[in-house]
Amino acid sequence: MFGARFLARALRSCSSAPCPGHRPPARLSVRDALGAQSTSGERVKVQGWIRSVRSQKEVLFLHINDGSSLESLQVVADSSFDNRELAFGSSVEVQGQLVKSPSKKQNMELKAEKIEVVGNCDATAFPFKYKERHPLEYLRQYPHLRCRTNALGSILRVRSEATAAIHSFFKDNGFVHIHTPIITSNDCEGAGELFQVEPSSKIKMPEENFFNVPAFLTVSGQLHLEVMSGAFTQVFTFGPTFRAENSQSRRHLAEFYMVEAEISFVESLQDLMQWGVDLHTEHEKYLVKHCGNIPVFVINYPLALKPFYMRDNEDGPQHTVAAVDLLVPGVGELFGGSLREERYHFLEQRLARSGLTETYQWYLDLRRFGSVPHGGFGMGFERYLQCILGIDNIKDVIPFPRFTHSCIL
Amino acid sequence: MFGARFLARALRSCSSAPCPGHRPPARLSVRDALGAQSTSGERVKVQGWIRSVRSQKEVLFLHINDGSSLESLQVVADSSFDNRELAFGSSVEVQGQLVKSPSKKQNMELKAEKIEVVGNCDATAFPFKYKERHPLEYLRQYPHLRCRTNALGSILRVRSEATAAIHSFFKDNGFVHIHTPIITSNDCEGAGELFQVEPSSKIKMPEENFFNVPAFLTVSGQLHLEVMSGAFTQVFTFGPTFRAENSQSRRHLAEFYMVEAEISFVESLQDLMQWGVDLHTEHEKYLVKHCGNIPVFVINYPLALKPFYMRDNEDGPQHTVAAVDLLVPGVGELFGGSLREERYHFLEQRLARSGLTETYQWYLDLRRFGSVPHGGFGMGFERYLQCILGIDNIKDVIPFPRFTHSCIL
Repeated sequence: MFGARFLARALRSCSSAPCPGHRPPARLSVRDALGAQSTSGERVKVQGWIRSVRSQKEVLFLHINDGSSLESLQVVADSSFDNRELAFGSSVEVQGQLVKSPSKKQNMELKAEKIEVVGNCDATAFPFKYKERHPLEYLRQYPHLRCRTNALGSILRVRSEATAAIHSFFKDNGFVHIHTPIITSNDCEGAGELFQVEPSSKIKMPEENFFNVPAFLTVSGQLHLEVMSGAFTQVFTFGPTFRAENSQSRRHLAEFYMVEAEISFVESLQDLMQWGVDLHTEHEKYLVKHCGNIPVFVINYPLALKPFYMRDNEDGPQHTVAAVDLLVPGVGELFGGSLREERYHFLEQRLARSGLTETYQWYLDLRRFGSVPHGGFGMGFERYLQCILGIDNIKDVIPFPRFTHSCIL
Repeated sequence: MFGARFLARALRSCSSAPCPGHRPPARLSVRDALGAQSTSGERVKVQGWIRSVRSQKEVLFLHINDGSSLESLQVVADSSFDNRELAFGSSVEVQGQLVKSPSKKQNMELKAEKIEVVGNCDATAFPFKYKERHPLEYLRQYPHLRCRTNALGSILRVRSEATAAIHSFFKDNGFVHIHTPIITSNDCEGAGELFQVEPSSKIKMPEENFFNVPAFLTVSGQLHLEVMSGAFTQVFTFGPTFRAENSQSRRHLAEFYMVEAEISFVESLQDLMQWGVDLHTEHEKYLVKHCGNIPVFVINYPLALKPFYMRDNEDGPQHTVAAVDLLVPGVGELFGGSLREERYHFLEQRLARSGLTETYQWYLDLRRFGSVPHGGFGMGFERYLQCILGIDNIKDVIPFPRFTHSCIL
């Protein structure tokens, strides 16, 4: 045992501090290996998980995936390398030469000189079977393993790219990113079930609050963004929001992500829907084709139905507020926005009628000290992903879905 | 009243759909106005808040800031524009010509042709006074207004830039971004006070759990990242984490942000500290100069002190685990990382000894199905900001600080 360990360590230190005369092979991701334009005959090292094994009389074919791309790298080895441990799901390190593939199926392939099994995969217990395409419902039972499938792997890579794109887009357009708080003493929407937060040791004595006041998980960063748009003009946040709704629908989660933006010196709903129009155009073709239906902007909701902060349209008996929702077939409300009531006296009256003047004194302050017309919107990130990917159930576009009766892992 | 509203609407529609013969002035941010290289004599529009007013016999000087930069734009106007409403903190819209400034203090200035006060500022009630530099402690009382000061404005712009840089850095290095869950049924650290989560209407009947199991706010995304590094090899998360610690110190918050990364096929702590070394080098000069001290990596902690997931060093009577912390003068622990125990039987024994085998069956699964040596680290984002900005109190580097007895807004 000691000998084996000693040897393993010697090999390990040899690979991190190269032995004289031996250049260690360059480590490549599967994506980089597949995308290589030419090869200088150098040895490379690729690490990943076996997606398929095909054993022929003289040649062994493996497909290796490391999550860097949907496509796997074909490894071609002498059949003498074959052994039982080279099985679906096992992790391996392969060293060899990256060469042009003679097949049209792939650009490059790896001619193996050394194959090491890093970790076995217990095939009888592994819930995914070789060559089987499991339904998304089945995969949902295994939140710790489903990311290894083509379907979830691809969805989560798109989610990661979309996350990066959202940050870049707002940055490039001069928006300041704000981490709006997760724990808050406000209830922005004034409706819907909230999650309350208390230290676990104190949860049985709710009369004592850790924060001195009852504290909840945020349902929206809007009011906090309004604080910030009064300083930075254009701000955005992209973070988790929460609803304690007793819903098992394919469109609701207890924990989901929102992209929210707030813009000062905005005077019409059109200024917010211009933002929306991009999305509209982008999706219209897809939606028209697949759903026989199109996204719809709904504007100017009755004042009585909407929260106190929406701007009064002063349109007589209709009495509406400057609100807009973007409804998308199959997904429902994707986007909601409004102009905010920036006029001190209008807001003061609305708050007084709801008995909220004291609670929202700070919010009134924003209208006392250099108020500006402003507005903003929020977009449900998971619904956006459902929309662009055509995924029916919201639980399949988030890594670890949380909903009523379920908080696995 | 109707007439005024009608006029206001007509003017508004005139500015959004230009009247024939009049091109509306281009809207410029203060930053873009200050950075303009040349002017073609076109009229521009700048919107923002007044930072200073200086009235001379024939000329009025205003400084306008919109949060796009630390520097304000100087507006030069005929003294006939002067009026009481042009005061510190008021919001204004200025139209005019952007011209080279004769003064060396600034590159460009705005020759005003039209100045409109958008929103007054009640100077007697406004907690910040003209030309006064308020201490950070004082500003902390006004979380809804302090972002309008030079100090907080600058800090939050750096925070926004650092956020964008973190996303770019990991993306450029082939990491997949993962939204690890905020609500979780796991307790990663096995220590420290957790926040428990329940729907607010049910918080008085804790025997009924919304999620069927007790649910907590995450203290780390590590275990969930380990799930993902088993599919994508290199993953990161950047989100809020929580500790219900009864601490009012200048280094602790109940809600703070962590950057966490997890990397598969990593076999030595050095592979993680390479990552750390960048940081070390970046800060060493500053820290040596300002603190007379240097950051220190502490490695290989006693097994008995550390959580079950850290890799056993098998080093005899010392019995340590492969853990590393980066301690930084003035800030304390900035960075913590470890190799994770990837060997099934080692982990199984550790979990069994703690009676956690059943709870962490899913975590053991990761070691049954293609396990790989892996490791990762977490960095406290606020402490990082304290470090690079030299800010003494952590409450000044986050927009809305949450700590014991305080959850303002």
